[in-house]
Formats: sequence, structure tokens, C-alpha cells
Amino acid sequence: MELTHIEHIGIAVKNLDESIKYYEEVLGLKCYSIEEVADQKVKTAFFKVGQTKLELLESTDPEGPIGKFIEKKGEGIHHLAFHVNDLQNALNDANAKGVRLIDEKPRKGAEGLDIAFLHPKSTNGVLTELCEDKVK
Amino acid sequence: MELTHIEHIGIAVKNLDESIKYYEEVLGLKCYSIEEVADQKVKTAFFKVGQTKLELLESTDPEGPIGKFIEKKGEGIHHLAFHVNDLQNALNDANAKGVRLIDEKPRKGAEGLDIAFLHPKSTNGVLTELCEDKVK
Repeated sequence: MELTHIEHIGIAVKNLDESIKYYEEVLGLKCYSIEEVADQKVKTAFFKVGQTKLELLESTDPEGPIGKFIEKKGEGIHHLAFHVNDLQNALNDANAKGVRLIDEKPRKGAEGLDIAFLHPKSTNGVLTELCEDKVK
Repeated sequence: MELTHIEHIGIAVKNLDESIKYYEEVLGLKCYSIEEVADQKVKTAFFKVGQTKLELLESTDPEGPIGKFIEKKGEGIHHLAFHVNDLQNALNDANAKGVRLIDEKPRKGAEGLDIAFLHPKSTNGVLTELCEDKVK
């Protein structure tokens, strides 16, 4: 597969408003979008740094994936998302190389991207997302 | 402060050789440098994806910072490094805004960069590095 750039970095936070304040006031970034992704039980806030977005994730339910992550590991970086030009092909390629997939087919993620996750058991502990922006 | 891009993402791994194999064979990246940073008790491997480097970190000592991180949290993303154009000014700015600093002055890091860390207590759990590439 061919990765073009890091599309985004997902960061689990306890309090979205407080974290937005830190990224804006200390790091000088600008939150350009807040979006709730109901099926992932998260509220997200997006920033852009160069080619890459930061996606802050606050859980809307303690039983959701981000709620469980924070309970286990605390706040911090949750996943790393690479952009590829042909997501289905990239998934087939990873699968053929023995990588365990969380999503065998692309599904819709935040910001209208097609996304799929690889399993951290196959990626040395880094929850890895592959994304394709078909609108671009 | 003004962040220009994500300079690198530091990833703690148990076994550098196995991880290099995954990043090269599955993700299609190319390791362009392996460097030991003795005072940090790590061996590092670098890859480039778009504007950003991935820095894999294997501990050379269980008592080093990466050894302790893996013991506590397991393998995974260890820190996030932003590039700034004036590192000392960025540190002064963060300090004035109440951010706890690990390094009050820039020091030399891998690849000849000037670097400094902010304390994760002040950054919502993300160990955050600021870098300035003065050679560029």
C-alpha cells in the first residue's frame, strides 16, 4: 500500500471544551469543526497542523470505545490515521500480509471520509486507521 | 506560538527490528535512519510519511523512559512533536500561559533538532515535544 500522509491523529480527552482551550490558547491552533459521531459515542473537535488534522475525542458514554480507553489508559493519543489513495486495495493488501483487520470493508467516518481500522494486535500496539478522501 | 507541521510521532516498541519489518512490509514505508540516543536510553528508527516522520523507539535499558512507558502502558504512541520556527520563544510563551515545562531551554535531540518537552500534566495527557530545525 502507499501512504500519502498522516490524515489525522485521534486524541482521547476527558473534557472537550477544556482541551479545545489548550490547543487554541497555548498551541495557537484553531478548532474549525465540532461533530458528534453517534455510533462511536464521541463528540469530536478538529484542528489542522500542516497536512494533518488533530481529532480530539470526548466520550458521550462511559461504555463507548473512548470512555473505556480513558478508564484503562488515561487521556492521550488514541489512534493514528494514514491517508491512502485506494482503501479497499490497501485493506486487501494488509489482509494478505497477515494483518488482523477490524474493518474488512471501508465504512463512513467523521468528515465524510471512508475509513477502516487495523487491529492493534497486528500493528505493535498502535491503533491504526486507514482513510480515503474520495471527495478531494 | 505558531506550529508549522507535525515534525514526528514517537512510537514505543518492544522490538525495533520486528516493528521496522511491519512499517516497511505492510505499510510500505522505508526506514531511512537508525540512531542510538544514549542519554535517552533508546535506539530509534525513522520513516517519513508526507511532512511527518515516524520515530520508532526501542529501549536499551528497562529503567529508561521508554522501558518504563512500555511496562506501564504497553507498546504504542509515546509522544507528539510539533515543529515551531522559534523554539525558545514558544517555550517562553507556553510558560507564561501556565504550562509546566520539562525543558525550560532547548536541548539537542535526534536528527540534530533543537527540542523541548512540555509536561503531559499540562497537555491533557499527550507528551508534547516542540522542535526547531535550525539547519533547514
